[in-house]
Amino acid sequence: MLVESYREMLGKKSVIRELSEFATARGKEIGYENVFDYSLGNPSVPVPKQFTEEMIRLINEDDGTLHGYSPSLTLPEVRQAVAESLKKRFGLPYEADHIFMTSGAAGAIAHAVRLIAAAGDEVLTFAPFFPEYHPYVDLTGAVLKVVPADTETFQINMDAFRSMLSERTAAVLINTPNNPSGVVYSDGTLQALADTLREFSAKYGHPIYLISDEPYREIVFDGREPSCPSRFYDNTIMCYSFSKSLSIPGERIGYVAVNPACEDAKVLIQMCGQISRGIGHNCPASIIQRAIVPCLDITSDLSVYERNMNLIYDTLRDLDVTVVRPGGTFYIFPKAPEEDAVAFSKKALNYDLVLVPGDSFGAPGFFRMAYCIDTEKVERSLPVLRKFITETYR
Amino acid sequence: MLVESYREMLGKKSVIRELSEFATARGKEIGYENVFDYSLGNPSVPVPKQFTEEMIRLINEDDGTLHGYSPSLTLPEVRQAVAESLKKRFGLPYEADHIFMTSGAAGAIAHAVRLIAAAGDEVLTFAPFFPEYHPYVDLTGAVLKVVPADTETFQINMDAFRSMLSERTAAVLINTPNNPSGVVYSDGTLQALADTLREFSAKYGHPIYLISDEPYREIVFDGREPSCPSRFYDNTIMCYSFSKSLSIPGERIGYVAVNPACEDAKVLIQMCGQISRGIGHNCPASIIQRAIVPCLDITSDLSVYERNMNLIYDTLRDLDVTVVRPGGTFYIFPKAPEEDAVAFSKKALNYDLVLVPGDSFGAPGFFRMAYCIDTEKVERSLPVLRKFITETYR
Repeated sequence: MLVESYREMLGKKSVIRELSEFATARGKEIGYENVFDYSLGNPSVPVPKQFTEEMIRLINEDDGTLHGYSPSLTLPEVRQAVAESLKKRFGLPYEADHIFMTSGAAGAIAHAVRLIAAAGDEVLTFAPFFPEYHPYVDLTGAVLKVVPADTETFQINMDAFRSMLSERTAAVLINTPNNPSGVVYSDGTLQALADTLREFSAKYGHPIYLISDEPYREIVFDGREPSCPSRFYDNTIMCYSFSKSLSIPGERIGYVAVNPACEDAKVLIQMCGQISRGIGHNCPASIIQRAIVPCLDITSDLSVYERNMNLIYDTLRDLDVTVVRPGGTFYIFPKAPEEDAVAFSKKALNYDLVLVPGDSFGAPGFFRMAYCIDTEKVERSLPVLRKFITETYR
Repeated sequence: MLVESYREMLGKKSVIRELSEFATARGKEIGYENVFDYSLGNPSVPVPKQFTEEMIRLINEDDGTLHGYSPSLTLPEVRQAVAESLKKRFGLPYEADHIFMTSGAAGAIAHAVRLIAAAGDEVLTFAPFFPEYHPYVDLTGAVLKVVPADTETFQINMDAFRSMLSERTAAVLINTPNNPSGVVYSDGTLQALADTLREFSAKYGHPIYLISDEPYREIVFDGREPSCPSRFYDNTIMCYSFSKSLSIPGERIGYVAVNPACEDAKVLIQMCGQISRGIGHNCPASIIQRAIVPCLDITSDLSVYERNMNLIYDTLRDLDVTVVRPGGTFYIFPKAPEEDAVAFSKKALNYDLVLVPGDSFGAPGFFRMAYCIDTEKVERSLPVLRKFITETYR
């Protein structure tokens, strides 16, 4: 007798994955270079040489301890290095005891939700949102509630947000820079969010935690600095991943960083160790934990993403497509020229353009383009995009 | 409001960990080489050179795909290689679709339990048992029930087992070669276990799954071949780890292998992918998955463990301590010369002998020695052990 909650999940196929599989199959027919595959958010830039050199150094200089067990709260020297980097960069007094290394942002968010939310609780997030938030929340027994998008700006729809906060709200989950919109929350948005959380925490007599999903933190455009939601609100659990900043998504490395001013900050980190015991995951791979230490304050060369964004954005504007200009990430989230973005996306396939409808992100009528591909391919795709939209909608 | 189930776990300190911390602290006083630390099951032999060479080769020959995402069911070429190795070694028709790569046996067991057991279900295991089975089972809502030990042989106490099987039994969890007893289940034991599971599956009208925890599979003594419980019972979920066979416990790599004859075998593997989504763990590190491929049919030089076992076993026998001779692992589990093994273990500390009482393994009155240490140190410890037991109990 298999456990039904997992078995039922098998029926629900991911639209993104289906489109990606289409792109791969179509690539076998006409050559993948001729499929304009904007489906997957898979980083495309090389790994920084510091990461590779550190891996080699660790292996060559192994004294027999390199591949040993990590302690249950992950490697102390790595936690220390992450704390120092965060402290230096964002000015909050992080210590090793506020850091827990995880298998990417996925592991970090799933831990953060388990710290705070259980059956009977609600976690709020804002459309458009990353659909994997559902399994992280659903399997704790809590309920994920989605605040409708402010489709003009993709900042926060504050009226809708306030009306959805309740006694049951255990946590609010944000993602800035945002997948799929590419939008970066302004300081004004973060301030208003923090003020609202303080107001409603007081009203309901319990802290409402902010879980801040930040895998795209370092991919910001127009020369702006990465922002830090934790600076606006004490009860913030930062969830970070090195997948995008270092282009190592398969190595599954990230962290939970609890704001030092958070209630029970160090207890939360100790609880992360217990969550890991229960899921049998324990720690990220030792060598990967160690290898990111010299890379904490660097990134891959991420400039291609901004270049691609500008090319696509300018073309969309020229075609009179409604679109909010991304402030970061490698996504853009335009309004489809017809109401049904699923139908739009199907028609695009006739042009070998693989675009993901926004429905699964909680924003029907929009579509996502993941432009973590070569600029050369972006350039070749633009006349095709132009042809598709002109022929079909103009 | 923090989730209490995890918070409560913080209070329960592990006896093994406390003793290990004592050993470390005492080591700082008198030199760690003078502390006879038999507390931790941390493999001590070098990593095989094939593993290290493959890591270097993968890094040097990376075409930009090495660190990319694994598919949600883990890397297909790795699953294929594991299936072929198991098929060749154990004669069961494994295919890639029966394999799911995990973060060690911990991840494998936690996944296996989640496949089968939820609130209202029972999972049976046999004393003496690895205490971490508790978090794997408890956090699913199911209940872990421990069948009392057959302390004469540490094989299975079949009468007690039969009396504890019930309609609620979803799975039976075994560990052979066994931590902490070092005992390997005989073919007769495995046959009787399988017959009983078939009988009771039929009686209750649902399959009772066998979850087989096999991290010590390759550490067997007296020239015997590793055994394979899956060959005795179709509905077996094998849980393996490379931590001990390759001495890479920190790299968190193992697998679930569902017996091809198991009901819904391939569905179970697909469900593993969904479990991973929910816990945010996804896949083991890509480079580690890849690096074990040339190491599937090899091990580190494990001969030190058998040498150590023989030295300790002979001394214990000579001291008239009751002990079952281990058939594998790097553990031995003698009867304490007084009824209270906790008191015995405390007295041993006066001799700088760090021995773990059997209570947390579900076998009070016994104690565990983890002899994954240098033979030189074992040799130095034996006169001390002799002195302790003679002075205290003879």
